[in-house]
Formats: sequence, C-alpha cells, structure tokens
Amino acid sequence: MNGFPERARRVMARCDELAAITSEPGRIDRYYLTPEHRTCSDRLARWMEAAGMTVWEDAAANLWGRYAAAADATPPVRALILGSHHDSVPNAGRYDGPLGILTALAAVEYLNQEGIRLPFHVDVVAFGDEEGTRFGTTLLGSYPVAGHWQPEWWDLTDRDGITLGEAFRQFGLDPAGIESCARDPDGVLGYLELHIEQGPVLEHGGYPLGVVTGIAGARRFSVTLEGEAGHAGTVPLSLRRDALLGAAEAALVVERVAREQDVMATVGRVDAVPGAVNVIAGEAVWSLDLRATDDERRDRALELIRNETDRLCTERGLVPSWRETHSAPAVACARGLQSHQSRALEAMGLEPVQLPSGAGHDAMAMARMTDVGMFFIRCAGGISHHPDESVLATDVGLGIEAMVRTLLNLASASATPE
Amino acid sequence: MNGFPERARRVMARCDELAAITSEPGRIDRYYLTPEHRTCSDRLARWMEAAGMTVWEDAAANLWGRYAAAADATPPVRALILGSHHDSVPNAGRYDGPLGILTALAAVEYLNQEGIRLPFHVDVVAFGDEEGTRFGTTLLGSYPVAGHWQPEWWDLTDRDGITLGEAFRQFGLDPAGIESCARDPDGVLGYLELHIEQGPVLEHGGYPLGVVTGIAGARRFSVTLEGEAGHAGTVPLSLRRDALLGAAEAALVVERVAREQDVMATVGRVDAVPGAVNVIAGEAVWSLDLRATDDERRDRALELIRNETDRLCTERGLVPSWRETHSAPAVACARGLQSHQSRALEAMGLEPVQLPSGAGHDAMAMARMTDVGMFFIRCAGGISHHPDESVLATDVGLGIEAMVRTLLNLASASATPE
Repeated sequence: MNGFPERARRVMARCDELAAITSEPGRIDRYYLTPEHRTCSDRLARWMEAAGMTVWEDAAANLWGRYAAAADATPPVRALILGSHHDSVPNAGRYDGPLGILTALAAVEYLNQEGIRLPFHVDVVAFGDEEGTRFGTTLLGSYPVAGHWQPEWWDLTDRDGITLGEAFRQFGLDPAGIESCARDPDGVLGYLELHIEQGPVLEHGGYPLGVVTGIAGARRFSVTLEGEAGHAGTVPLSLRRDALLGAAEAALVVERVAREQDVMATVGRVDAVPGAVNVIAGEAVWSLDLRATDDERRDRALELIRNETDRLCTERGLVPSWRETHSAPAVACARGLQSHQSRALEAMGLEPVQLPSGAGHDAMAMARMTDVGMFFIRCAGGISHHPDESVLATDVGLGIEAMVRTLLNLASASATPE
Repeated sequence: MNGFPERARRVMARCDELAAITSEPGRIDRYYLTPEHRTCSDRLARWMEAAGMTVWEDAAANLWGRYAAAADATPPVRALILGSHHDSVPNAGRYDGPLGILTALAAVEYLNQEGIRLPFHVDVVAFGDEEGTRFGTTLLGSYPVAGHWQPEWWDLTDRDGITLGEAFRQFGLDPAGIESCARDPDGVLGYLELHIEQGPVLEHGGYPLGVVTGIAGARRFSVTLEGEAGHAGTVPLSLRRDALLGAAEAALVVERVAREQDVMATVGRVDAVPGAVNVIAGEAVWSLDLRATDDERRDRALELIRNETDRLCTERGLVPSWRETHSAPAVACARGLQSHQSRALEAMGLEPVQLPSGAGHDAMAMARMTDVGMFFIRCAGGISHHPDESVLATDVGLGIEAMVRTLLNLASASATPE
C-alpha cells in the first residue's frame, strides 16, 4: 500500500484551491448558500466524478458522491458515509472541514485506482453548513441528512435580514423538499469523518492521528453575581460586597473542580459593572462553558461548581443567578468503528491514541441516525478558526491511509458472516 | 449655644436650591465655568453678603466671602479658610461640595448673629472646580489658590473641544491673571472643610461626624497578563495559559494583601480578550486602585502584590506587564486642627472618631500651602456621586455646631500667648 505522500500533496493543493474560493479576497470567508458555496460544490463535483463517483446535490445543497459497492455485493447494499463540511468561520483557516472531504475523496481515488470495490457503497458528503456562520445556527447541512429539521429554522436570518427560506430559494432549492435530505438509517452503515484536532493534544504527545472517543456535550451559562457598588477609596474591605472578587473566586473554583472531575471548563469573560478603575463592582457577569464526553460527569461538576459558588456568595454577601444559554448532550463514537480505526493505525505502526472531541462536528448530527467515528489529525499549535491553521502533508498522507485501511477493515468485517 | 436645628434646616433648603441650578433639568449637572457656575456663585454671594461678609471672585472664578476679624485683633491678622466646591459630577447628589460651603456659611451666620468676632478672618470659599467633570482634571479651583498651576492645563478641552483657556475668557476671566489666585501662605491660618464621608464607616459605627486624619494617596495601574487563547473544548487544562484565571488569582491576591497591610485596594474591572464564552482568554487586562494614608505602607502593599502576581504568572505561563495610570501622594491633616476638632466633638458629647479619607478633596490642593483639617459627616449608605446622596438634618446641625466650636477653640488657642 503506497503512493500516499503524493495523494497527500494533491489534498494539500486542493485545500489551497478551495481556500481561494472566498467572498473576501485575502481571507477565507465561505458561507452557506452563497456564490462561493456554488463554486466550491462545482469544483468538488468535478473531482468526485473524476474519481468514478456518481454525484448529486440534496435538498439542503449538500454535495454527495457515491463510489458504488462491488457489483456482486450481497443485498441489501448499504452505504458508509465519509465527509465533512466546506463552509467556514469568518477569516478562517483552510483545513477545518475541507480536509475531511478531500481525504475522503483521496481514499476513494485510491480504491478506484487500485480497482477495489467494497461490499458497501462509499458516499462522500460535502456538507454546506457546519459552522453556522451565516445564520447563527450550526449543522444546517448535516441535521436534515440525519432527519432532524426544525421548522423555525426557516425564519433564521443572516446579517442582511435574508431568511434561511429565502436563501434556499435564491440558491435554487425548494424548502418544501427539505425532508428528502434524510438518509434512510437502514441504508447507512455509519459515518466516518477526519478533522483537524483544533486542540494541542496530538501535537503535544507526538501523535499524527488519533481516534475520537466521543464528542463532548456542552452546557453554557451566564452567571450574574449581585453585590454592591461603592467608592474604591471610601468603603473599607470589611464592608464591601465586591461582585468582581466573587467572580474571581468562582473562576478559580471552576478551574479546581474541572481538574478534580476531569471535565473541560472555561470562564471566557468576566464583565464588571460599572467596570471603572475606582469603583467597587456592584455586579459581575461571567460565562461558564462546561464540557465532557459523559453528561453525568459534566453535570456532577456543574453541581459542585454551583454549590461552591453559592457558598462563596453567602460569605461575600453576593446573590448569584444562573442562566443556561446552551445545552447539548455528549455523543459517543461507535465502539465498532473505533476498533476498526485503531486496528488501522496499529497496522501502520502508529499508536492508536484515543481522545475526546471538545468541539462540535457534523458527526454530532449524524449520530442521530447512524454509528459515527472520527479521526483527528494533529494541527500546529492546536490552532483553528484562524488563518494560521496548519497541518503536515506527511500527517495527511497517514490520514488517507488510515481511512483506506479502516474501509478495508470494515469490508472484511462485513464480509464475515455475523 | 443653640438654634442649630433651625440653621441645619436652612442649609438643607439651600442645598435643594443649589441642586435646582443644573444644565439638565431633573438631574444635577453643574460644571466649571458654565452659566450654572455663574448662577450658583451669584446666589452664594447674596447669602454671604447677608451674613455680613465682603465678597469677591478670584481669577479662577472661585467665590470668596470674608467675615472680618475683630477690629482689635493683633496684627498681622491671618485668615482661616472654610469651604468646599459647588461643581458636580454628572447626575450628582446635592451634598457633595455644597454642604461644605453652606455649613461654613451657617457657622459664619451664627458668629455674625451672636456678634462674635474672632482674632482671625474667616474666609469662606466656594471652589468652582473640584470634580474635574468638564476638563477631566480635578481641583482646577483650589490648585491655583494653593499657588499650584500647570500651564499645560490651558489646553485641556471639554467634550465640545473648548479649551480651558477659551472657557476662562468666555466666563470673563483673564488667564494671564491666574497667579493672582494664590493666597499668601503667611496670611493663612489653615483650611477647614466639612464634606460628606462618601463611605459607610460613620453610618456603620453610628457616628454623625468624624475627624479626618488624612487623605489617602492613590496609585492606579492597568495590568495586562498575556497568555494564550484557545478553544474552550479542545485545549486540556494542563496545556492552558489562561489569562483570565491569572487575573482572577491576582484579584484575590490584591484582596488578601490589602487586608494584611491595611490598605484600600480595588480591582474594578477585568477585560478578557477575546472575551467569548467558548474561547480561553489569551489576554486579561485588569485595573488596580491602591490607597493608603501612608505612602510607604501603600507602596509596600504594591510590592507584595507585584511579587505575588509575578509568582502566579510564572506558574501559569503568563507574562505580566504593569502600566501606572495615576499617582498622588497621601496628605496628612494637621494634628493641631485635628485636636481642636476633636475637642469640639467631645464638648458636644460626641465621640471624636477619627478616619482617613479615601477620596480626594480640595483639602488635598490646599495642603500645598497651609494646614488642612476636615470633618466628615455621615451620609446614607455611604452613597455619593448619585442622586440618592442623603444626609440627616440633625447631623448637619451637629456639623455646623462642630465648625463653630472648632473656630472658637482656634480663637482661644490663638489668643493664648505661644
């Protein structure tokens, strides 16, 4: 099994080519249902066709290419879906999303050139929206594929006031057909996605690739501590009800509990009111982002944080109030897929390191209808959502090979009588 | 000695009357060198004249009234200056400043009605600017009286771009005459000011009045901690350099050191960059306001805070940088004046409680040329710089009596051969 370095170079070049499709020259801005979306889909469609795939666009403008199963595959022939998204955050990097589509395509190209047909179809999907940049709601591409659509989404608007429904029609889509996007779960074997890690774990450990165990469920809160404002020069410390000091202590509680309970927790901002150098803060509003691959562990950490915050507020004469701003359950990656992925890495002489995903991905939506698996590929400095996003071509080559090997492992398994 | 409750009621009514002089009806907005300044000075001048005082305006538009010494006073006859300011912060209360002028005036009215002349002149001053609201620099009224003027102040501008020099001319003043404001230190016995406490200490202890020991020197800093931004879901705690957590820990260090070293210290704001719920703060900028009546103690506290901040930054992989934004030395109140004030309170059956001033006052400027003393009067909830500012008429009556008694104590002392 060889030729992967050259395939990796082609993937890198294609990432560069897609990066040039942007609404804002000199940056990467590629959003859902825009002219750049159309250009990007057209380019991908050409590559898919050249790889021997049948291409179609679904009712949500996701692009699909099918590399058909072996002619003698035992019916019912199901499909393994590979892919990722091609939309971007504002001023994005070039690998978050496109790399997953293009490594999937490279894996199919390998099979096609080697003349290998599998006992299942390989469907490569390029989702039109994952980041949610244009309409403020993420996963608008993959949710309808998973059969999950909220009618109120039609009224989401972009910053020009265009609704999602209008944007569909302007793109030549019929909103009434949205349900046709949904793939039949019985016809799908699973969903496998390669994505940059967007974190430093693989780089720090010296691993090019990792097997994702699950996608953390996140809960977010805006917490307000109410104290009493006062003159910084005249109110003795013993008479203060300083809301900012309460928030500072709470932030350190969050850090300690996160370490003890092994969850991800972040206080990303603290806004003091009035926020003047010479005024004791009468109010402090801080944000909490809490994630774990296990919802119970996450919620236990939350309870500890809330109890400790209540205690310190009582001591400081502050009144806390909590408002939940976001909640999503954790998604586990399928053990079967993980095991095929790990064996692929082992066969390549790589340690099958496992790690959770703290960020959301299309696999979260797809998990509503099928087994999901993900490979993470290391990215420089863990940086993402930034022009500095960077991956090594050698890692990309290993990624393509790992995808191919996972497909072959799955093929062997499905060929084996259950 | 009686009639003070009635005098207090008149002072309260006059505070209400001055409160109605505002550029913005329904609030109190009375700034330096404005039509409201003129109206306010005219009103005060009328009351001063009615109290038997000779009235003049100096080259900085401060209003003066002299209640002349006894005709047989032994030359050289000096003056004791009493007073405060009549300018306001935006949307101010009605007692911060005016109460000091009007209680001084009420003390003179008492002397005048009782036919008491002292061995020194009593000069009541109404400073035109203490808050610095219009030109952004405080004490523009009292500094030139103390013989301290910075030529660069002429170029200070208000929010309409009018320079201080232009404002002087528009008010009918000659900037070239500013030095004539300076009182000859040899002709001044001291400066005594009554002011609302602007803090909760007197109220908390149940004291109507207190003797101020000194005015705290303040140093202010903007401290930046540089860390590394990152995705809240993907960077493990062990690999983070979270600037906001560093600032939180530093704020608690500030609190601890302030308690241990008996200084006033306040972190009034913490700005996280980028400040998003799902991003680890790569930078945190926080403010430090540090005050003590003893500059050495204050600076020792600062050193401890800086050392502890350096230590925690090293532990957290953060880089701190400190920028000083303000520095003013502490001002001590004269022991002689304090002792006359304390004896006055004792004679009234009040505990001569002593307390420092954490806020700045005209006495700070006046201390550059003469002995200063201050009475603090309790204000409800320690609230100031707010429409809710409030004092009790009974306390105001005690304040007038305490001023009168302090003047009489000073008179006895100056009558006694040294």
